[in-house]
Amino acid sequence: MQGKGLLGELINSLCCLPGIGPKSAQRMAFHLLQRDRQGARRLSDILTKAVNEIGHCRQCRTLTEKELCDICANPAREQGLLCIVESPADVWVIEQATAFRGHYFVLHGRLSPLDGIGPDELGFDELEARMRSGQLQEIILATNSTVEGEATAHFIAELARKYTIPASRIAHGVPMGGELEYTDSGTLMHAFSGRREI
Amino acid sequence: MQGKGLLGELINSLCCLPGIGPKSAQRMAFHLLQRDRQGARRLSDILTKAVNEIGHCRQCRTLTEKELCDICANPAREQGLLCIVESPADVWVIEQATAFRGHYFVLHGRLSPLDGIGPDELGFDELEARMRSGQLQEIILATNSTVEGEATAHFIAELARKYTIPASRIAHGVPMGGELEYTDSGTLMHAFSGRREI
Ligand SMILES: [Zn+2]
Ligand SMILES: [Zn+2]
Repeated sequence: MQGKGLLGELINSLCCLPGIGPKSAQRMAFHLLQRDRQGARRLSDILTKAVNEIGHCRQCRTLTEKELCDICANPAREQGLLCIVESPADVWVIEQATAFRGHYFVLHGRLSPLDGIGPDELGFDELEARMRSGQLQEIILATNSTVEGEATAHFIAELARKYTIPASRIAHGVPMGGELEYTDSGTLMHAFSGRREI
Repeated sequence: MQGKGLLGELINSLCCLPGIGPKSAQRMAFHLLQRDRQGARRLSDILTKAVNEIGHCRQCRTLTEKELCDICANPAREQGLLCIVESPADVWVIEQATAFRGHYFVLHGRLSPLDGIGPDELGFDELEARMRSGQLQEIILATNSTVEGEATAHFIAELARKYTIPASRIAHGVPMGGELEYTDSGTLMHAFSGRREI
């Protein structure tokens, strides 16, 4: 009975949000309709606009509504320093957490032969063109520390070696404030092999 | 830098959803733009439609896009049995959880003299008109078990007595599966005073 109607449709489509189950979707729908119609209207307007206008930066391939994203368009950022990441979300978190002042290149994935994702799907031709241009002084590999992320980082490191561009991998280890007891064995192995003199 | 732009605006407006902090809003925005643009488009369309079209049922005052909600319009539901609740969300949960087959009346609040919410704000005139009509056989008071919800239930019970309509209050006590140790004292007091022979 109640499952039908516009309210039911709204609850259903809120369920498409990650981490939102039926209970949370209900709470959201009632909150928006009962207490915050202005916020709901603003959200629907911005969502429509975002879906229609946001594409990929022609240089770094991150999400932006412009041809060239704010980072690529910023002359204050170091052109020669390139950080390679798997997704636009990674750009966002690195910008928030670090003082990195270089540029990015977004792969939109990682090498995964079984899923048919090879160098062509990840924009390696564009990446190699930038290496060839002679503008890059350093490459930072910030792909995820999964098997595929590691393989992707190594593949790009090989490519960089061809053009004699120094490439580094971000450090992996026990998280700051993390306890050894609760650290998984892969991370702990990494932390040991990556140990540095103090 | 990244806080600006359409993506930043989208993340900000997702933060207006209840229970959604900046981290979840980020995850949602990237999910919608990277993996589910169709879901995002559907959500924005339905949200716009819902905000513009959903109003209140002219009989029970719950949320609906129609003049008369599906419950009020359903001839199979008992006209003489009226459940009084504080909000449209309460109608939704009762419909999902119980086998109640009567009608509802939504107060959209509770008596709260300090906030200037009296009988006029809660539609008591409409409610009394229904009591006067002679159609009601029973009233179930399902306002929340807060001080104000209890006061509201008692006020309506008095009104019902005037028209000699039997009124009952939903039971409050230890939740099913709940342990005494984790039950608050007010609930426990209620559970004791409301004890029944077994
Ligand atoms: Zn860019
Ligand atoms: Zn109704």
